[in-house]
Amino acid sequence: MADIFVVIGGDAAGMSAASKAKREDHDLEVIVFEKGKWVSYGACGLPYYIKGEIDTLEDLISIPAKDFEEKRNIDLRRNQEVLNINPQDRNITVADGSKKFKQDYDKLLISTGARPAVPRIEGRKLEGVFTLHYLPSAEEIRNTLKKSDPPESVGIIGGGYIGMEMAEAFRAHELEVHIFEVLPYVLNSFGEETSKKVEEHLEKKGINLHLDTEVERIVDRDGRVAGIETKEGSTELNMVLFSVGVEPTVELAEESGIEIGETGAIRTDEHGRTNYPEVFAAGDCAEATNTVTGEPDYVPLALTANRSGRAIGQTVAGSPKPVGATAGTAVVKVFDLEAARTGIVDHDRAEEAGFKPATKTITSPSRAHYYPGGDRITVSLTADEKSGKLLGASMMGKEGVAKRIDTVATALHSSMTVSELEYLDLSYAPPFGPTWDPVLIAAKVLNGAIS
Amino acid sequence: MADIFVVIGGDAAGMSAASKAKREDHDLEVIVFEKGKWVSYGACGLPYYIKGEIDTLEDLISIPAKDFEEKRNIDLRRNQEVLNINPQDRNITVADGSKKFKQDYDKLLISTGARPAVPRIEGRKLEGVFTLHYLPSAEEIRNTLKKSDPPESVGIIGGGYIGMEMAEAFRAHELEVHIFEVLPYVLNSFGEETSKKVEEHLEKKGINLHLDTEVERIVDRDGRVAGIETKEGSTELNMVLFSVGVEPTVELAEESGIEIGETGAIRTDEHGRTNYPEVFAAGDCAEATNTVTGEPDYVPLALTANRSGRAIGQTVAGSPKPVGATAGTAVVKVFDLEAARTGIVDHDRAEEAGFKPATKTITSPSRAHYYPGGDRITVSLTADEKSGKLLGASMMGKEGVAKRIDTVATALHSSMTVSELEYLDLSYAPPFGPTWDPVLIAAKVLNGAIS
Repeated sequence: MADIFVVIGGDAAGMSAASKAKREDHDLEVIVFEKGKWVSYGACGLPYYIKGEIDTLEDLISIPAKDFEEKRNIDLRRNQEVLNINPQDRNITVADGSKKFKQDYDKLLISTGARPAVPRIEGRKLEGVFTLHYLPSAEEIRNTLKKSDPPESVGIIGGGYIGMEMAEAFRAHELEVHIFEVLPYVLNSFGEETSKKVEEHLEKKGINLHLDTEVERIVDRDGRVAGIETKEGSTELNMVLFSVGVEPTVELAEESGIEIGETGAIRTDEHGRTNYPEVFAAGDCAEATNTVTGEPDYVPLALTANRSGRAIGQTVAGSPKPVGATAGTAVVKVFDLEAARTGIVDHDRAEEAGFKPATKTITSPSRAHYYPGGDRITVSLTADEKSGKLLGASMMGKEGVAKRIDTVATALHSSMTVSELEYLDLSYAPPFGPTWDPVLIAAKVLNGAIS
Repeated sequence: MADIFVVIGGDAAGMSAASKAKREDHDLEVIVFEKGKWVSYGACGLPYYIKGEIDTLEDLISIPAKDFEEKRNIDLRRNQEVLNINPQDRNITVADGSKKFKQDYDKLLISTGARPAVPRIEGRKLEGVFTLHYLPSAEEIRNTLKKSDPPESVGIIGGGYIGMEMAEAFRAHELEVHIFEVLPYVLNSFGEETSKKVEEHLEKKGINLHLDTEVERIVDRDGRVAGIETKEGSTELNMVLFSVGVEPTVELAEESGIEIGETGAIRTDEHGRTNYPEVFAAGDCAEATNTVTGEPDYVPLALTANRSGRAIGQTVAGSPKPVGATAGTAVVKVFDLEAARTGIVDHDRAEEAGFKPATKTITSPSRAHYYPGGDRITVSLTADEKSGKLLGASMMGKEGVAKRIDTVATALHSSMTVSELEYLDLSYAPPFGPTWDPVLIAAKVLNGAIS
């Protein structure tokens, strides 16, 4: 009888694993349980759907459900919820409407994703308070903005990626936008230099920033949002969005005796295995290994999910493949800006990992000095003073940032020193950069300071 | 008495070395001899000056001559030509107008650059025949285009970088443009797949391509260009530009007993030293080490010159620094396209270096499939089938190509395998690429084919 590979959760990690496993081993029976109706959707596109640049939620689907079923021969069970896992007996219990049944497995992947974190403050359940994560929530927000009497102002709680993208989306609908961030900077993981420049840009775009500001409660007027109260005072608002990050959905795993790591996500080894060798975990519910520290990390990003899902699919099909490490490489569009980061930028975190971090920030033209157009790029580079080992980078500018960060991400993967980075042979032509690429200039300056 | 560091040639390599040496060792006497009047100029900007996007030649200057003299304390001798080098006696003979004098040195850098290659065909000296390299030649071309009776058509002999950029410049002046290329493709070092797409784009832009076509002679009418003759026939033209590449200016070195390598450029070691340990060579007259093969290579590009000049300056100042290897990373704007390359793409060349090359080409959206705008990016990736070692890449598209090539350039520097490349953590956001970056997709496909 054919082996059975069961996947719980039908988004990036789950569908990547299912597809890869079936492609590598045609005899494998692959069953995916998804509690909702959507599979393989591009959640990263939701802010642009709300902004109005993408017409329908269907546009966000990477691969239609029927392609998984008909072309990839995956047994896809939508609207079926897994209630528990019995690792000792190698089966799971599934609810299909009011019916319950058991499903055996030989290999299991838990890819239950994450959900938006919502702080337990007063007013969090009022009408007009939203989170953005699943497709239906995006539809609800868009419908609210398109009502005949739409909200005139919105408070975004949390200045991370989603907060940035949603600020742009809400401004496109002409709302007055307030961002409340409990930390002193927006995009905190990008480091102070980049964050400050992003804040200047947000203010130019008419965004009201409330930094270093804890939201104490959401004001209630007849069951609806009327404002946000902080220690500094009160702001009248018609709408609130929580975007304070996500928390891994691990209850199902935890209740079944699957180990949770210190990050709060499911602990996995280099092949994505949990403490039960036939049970894997991947995507936003699982830990990953940090490229720079080699330690467990929680990086709920799309590529990490896709990559580890794909590797686990290959492992399940009989040819073991490590899931790979993550540098936390990320880029975000903030109105006209591109802001990007990779590795470890935060000094406290670098010190915890045993490094003695040093950072230098440079600003460089984005094109040859004489070539028309272009803007300036700011690059912050961080390295270990003792060894010269590169630790991370962040950068921002109006062009040429999104893919420039990948040079540093690749260098981190190879454990390069700043001195090696300085002597890379990078591309040059007047329309695309100065002769010395901004990354090389930053490496020169940082290397000069620490060597 | 202070040591004397003499530099012959005042462009990228020479001025980088002079500046770095003086900065690191204030006591060093640094003298630069430049036979022309221009120093530290951005020759890469000349096509855009001719196109009309840059107003004056002065705009191309990176650092004004008086800054070298006054701020950097470099003894800069313009319009002084070095006539010979006496390595045994450690001096050079210099002509200053009609006067001659000897100048001693402790360390010498030869950075005499390169000059446009001109095939010895009939008609090459006619009026209306140009090369593009030095600033005055660009001025002459621009003046010709701005005459009251300007040329209506031009033949570009050579379809390399300069040929591409000049096609765009001439079209901006509404000339009929013909490109004659003796090889079957334009941008030959980019590989067939990229070249073909570039050719399609050139044709869309109204450029007439004569590929696989040797120019036999330039037609003479009263001492002026009247056309180009090939085996296939004759084309009437008012103007001709040679852009068949450059040849290193090595006569001065060669006559002094300094060794020339197999590439025709000055042989150097990892610190840029020639066969005389106190004589260095750098820039377009010198060899470099290829990142992929470790063999000597001739890569007359701006960054190579700047980097090796800077490293030699540091070595001369007493703290030896290798000049670094070159992957031949390059990018060129061809009208609305970006075309880029790095490493070894050509199979014959890879085989000569002992590899068994395999190439795969993929096409991918430049943004998330649902994000508006964007275009398609083509990526060709080449690796050694035996070891999986990455050898090179080329790519093209309307956006996101110029800096994307740097990911592969960085990977080459670290001797990565395709399998490692496939699992890099690269940046992703819907406006800037798909979740799996085109480079990662190419790596997946190539790795699948060879493993």
